[in-house]
Amino acid sequence: MGGESGPSVIVPALLNCLSKHKSVEAILYGDLQEVALYLSLCHDQALLSRIELVHCEGEVLDTDKPSDVIRARTPSSMSLAVEAVAKKYADACISAGNTGALMGLGLINLRTLPGVSRPAICTTFPTISGRSYVLDLGANVECSPEQLHQFAILGSLTAHLLDDIKEPSVRLLNVGVEEGKGSNQLQRTANLLSADPQLNYCGFVEGDGIFKGLANVVVCDGFAGNIALKAIEGFAMMIATILEDLLRSSWLARITLGIMSRSFEGLKHRLDPALYNGAYLLGLHGIVIKSHGSASKKAFENALEVAIEAAKHNLPKALAPLLTDKFRTNQKESV
Amino acid sequence: MGGESGPSVIVPALLNCLSKHKSVEAILYGDLQEVALYLSLCHDQALLSRIELVHCEGEVLDTDKPSDVIRARTPSSMSLAVEAVAKKYADACISAGNTGALMGLGLINLRTLPGVSRPAICTTFPTISGRSYVLDLGANVECSPEQLHQFAILGSLTAHLLDDIKEPSVRLLNVGVEEGKGSNQLQRTANLLSADPQLNYCGFVEGDGIFKGLANVVVCDGFAGNIALKAIEGFAMMIATILEDLLRSSWLARITLGIMSRSFEGLKHRLDPALYNGAYLLGLHGIVIKSHGSASKKAFENALEVAIEAAKHNLPKALAPLLTDKFRTNQKESV
Repeated sequence: MGGESGPSVIVPALLNCLSKHKSVEAILYGDLQEVALYLSLCHDQALLSRIELVHCEGEVLDTDKPSDVIRARTPSSMSLAVEAVAKKYADACISAGNTGALMGLGLINLRTLPGVSRPAICTTFPTISGRSYVLDLGANVECSPEQLHQFAILGSLTAHLLDDIKEPSVRLLNVGVEEGKGSNQLQRTANLLSADPQLNYCGFVEGDGIFKGLANVVVCDGFAGNIALKAIEGFAMMIATILEDLLRSSWLARITLGIMSRSFEGLKHRLDPALYNGAYLLGLHGIVIKSHGSASKKAFENALEVAIEAAKHNLPKALAPLLTDKFRTNQKESV
Repeated sequence: MGGESGPSVIVPALLNCLSKHKSVEAILYGDLQEVALYLSLCHDQALLSRIELVHCEGEVLDTDKPSDVIRARTPSSMSLAVEAVAKKYADACISAGNTGALMGLGLINLRTLPGVSRPAICTTFPTISGRSYVLDLGANVECSPEQLHQFAILGSLTAHLLDDIKEPSVRLLNVGVEEGKGSNQLQRTANLLSADPQLNYCGFVEGDGIFKGLANVVVCDGFAGNIALKAIEGFAMMIATILEDLLRSSWLARITLGIMSRSFEGLKHRLDPALYNGAYLLGLHGIVIKSHGSASKKAFENALEVAIEAAKHNLPKALAPLLTDKFRTNQKESV
């Protein structure tokens, strides 16, 4: 059981989640001694009966190379969780561990959906009007135009299935919105996207446009996506620290915060990075959700919610025929 | 006179700036009829006598191609302002207009400092502990390792000169901090930087590390830098909008805001993007400052402050011998 805090965060988050979702059952892979400690704090026997425990001593460290993890003979909590999805014991798996290893295990055990060469890490960013799907966020540092096209299709179909948007608007992340801006690779990608009749491609978007809600789906390579995601996380954390210092600085501030608590809760609810934790490894024959390594209990709970939402929509199964149709049509047209 | 608001923002900002800095004089290039309208609101004759007006009908539009601007026969307010620096009529020029055109005019009129092949757009980002210089922010979408090495030297020397830091820490923006992360280009750049004995190179930094103040100088290509900058601008604007809605939503909120105004001013002062407006076109034989096109009066005033700070330190003149030393030493070592 990975992440920086392991069972101390994951078990309480799971207990909260199971008390909300009565029809959900869980399998916990990890060091059962440690897990038992946190489970013992729960006295709801009916709830506990919905958790299956699988003891496992193998562990994937953040420093482990994905290739070593895949070749390892001793199963790890991560490899067992991914296998459970492959063998249909589970509808989704969630991990807060090593992203590269999770991606490698996902690829080996679940393989990619039709027409998808590599999965993308995808999550939703808050916008002024709702949320936008952004991908890739770091799985593929360099991407070919063809791969970015695949991500556009995956993102568009996901926004359609999960957010019920008829024709999701898709934009490419760039350093300007004018045609001709950006690298040759981006120009070629823009051509591919605008030539695809099944995509509602709307042109380029700059970093600020994501938060203005200018697109339902924003496509970028894993380098740009990861830089943007982490920069915003860092900026949000800085604001939170400054606000906290400010509110601690005087009794007047503490009193006014008390008066304003409901309004501030509203703001926190919109901005809290915890509420955007849980990224899809999109493009696999199975649901794999990556939680932030340093996720809090609330943040891990959100990753569980993301997994449940995807499982309810049976996301990979719903994507597969749509992808087949899409790629078939594209191939026909290009003949 | 460029930018989205032109003289209506620039003239009042300049008047404020001149009233603060008694030894500063200004030359205004633009449509004098329009300028006069805003100048007429000022009745301080001594202050007005420090402003020289140069009428000019030519204008660079945001949609103009840099190559067309450089070749244009009619001088524009932008070309005259850059020429004024080249001809030593002015110590610095500030523009809120077309970035590509400003860069082109800067290159043609001012040429690059020794050892610098292309200038970089550089600005400071707020961090939890102060500020960090980040470059390039969009002038060079794709950069060679050698160019990134030049940016590292430029950034390091600038932080040394302006912020009086003895050995500024320099880091490369990447999707992870472990060696081996990122593209081959970044690996090669890391090798160049760590082999330079005159740089305090400290390794990679992720997007969130900028705001944690993990480096005095963060180096990246213009694509990554621009995406990060704009994403943060967009995120900050979204927060501001949500906060405003929240505070407008109830009388209680408005009263508490009144009580808290001083604390909130402190927060705003740290976060207000206006206070980080004004980017150096670093690496030219002259000071050229780019203001955001949609800068408010306060933001443009900050760009003027950035120009004055650079002029007080005589930045390009101070950089030139240091760069010569640095490149000479590097060349000696590589012999």
